[in-house]
Amino acid sequence: MKTAERTPFAYRTIGIIRTPHRDSTHTPYQPTTASSHEYECFIELAETYLPALARLEEFKYIYVIYHMDRLHRSVEMTVIPPWANRIQVGLFASRTPLRPNPIGLSIVQLREIRSNRIYTSNLDVFDGTPLLDIKPYIRDLDSKTEANCGWIDDLPDRDHLTLHIRGIPHDY
Amino acid sequence: MKTAERTPFAYRTIGIIRTPHRDSTHTPYQPTTASSHEYECFIELAETYLPALARLEEFKYIYVIYHMDRLHRSVEMTVIPPWANRIQVGLFASRTPLRPNPIGLSIVQLREIRSNRIYTSNLDVFDGTPLLDIKPYIRDLDSKTEANCGWIDDLPDRDHLTLHIRGIPHDY
Repeated sequence: MKTAERTPFAYRTIGIIRTPHRDSTHTPYQPTTASSHEYECFIELAETYLPALARLEEFKYIYVIYHMDRLHRSVEMTVIPPWANRIQVGLFASRTPLRPNPIGLSIVQLREIRSNRIYTSNLDVFDGTPLLDIKPYIRDLDSKTEANCGWIDDLPDRDHLTLHIRGIPHDY
Repeated sequence: MKTAERTPFAYRTIGIIRTPHRDSTHTPYQPTTASSHEYECFIELAETYLPALARLEEFKYIYVIYHMDRLHRSVEMTVIPPWANRIQVGLFASRTPLRPNPIGLSIVQLREIRSNRIYTSNLDVFDGTPLLDIKPYIRDLDSKTEANCGWIDDLPDRDHLTLHIRGIPHDY
């Protein structure tokens, strides 16, 4: 592992993600569908890649992969997720942005493509975040209905917390 | 976009993926659960990150994110998926490994963690592939049952092709 640890890979921006989120106070923890306006979140793809969008619009959901470029805290081996009362878990058992490689992954609804702009449901990233990749979300491959929610399933107020994480409005 | 295009991000290996797949002839197109032996596929995480695995084992599925380091062909804007008869789609509407940033994403079953080895169902990657990240697959966030399969839904032999992509044995 020593040798491998020293080999860096160079990735480059292929577009910019535009959202109304300027700071962590107003950025959702996860992508949400409830509160975003129609044309508020979009990906501005570098024009070079326009032909690479062919037939993407036929998908209802896409993966957006990006470089989390505004992290100022250091990476810790364990984290306390902000929405789960004082539970401590390993960083790989969490979706914390503070990871050895700050690669972000969000699954969002694809709403419309206009030229090099890909309009989506609410993206949980800061405005101006550099885009690394877009992949189609293919239900038959990616929707694992037999999956679970790991340690989240053990939380006493699990269902309520899940509404918070997903940004779904509720009365209690 | 011109400036952003010139800014590279440096990621580093945090582990090595071990599989029995040495060349593209024998590597599945997508992760499969049908044909893998019990301890054939595993991630060997750099030992530094051992504490970061805490409570990961409670998840049934994980995302494995890796650097596809053995691509020799150049990136094309459109691709013809090998299993879909002569259909041409944009690279972002496909899961081709030939992408502007060669970041691979696989969803696999987590079978067991023994020290720094994470045993999984069949991974669709070459043996020795550098690991970039592991994230938990959280059913309530990631399983989008209302998603579709995009242009794949329009293929005449769609259901049959899906069995091939997923590596599920069948008689016809």
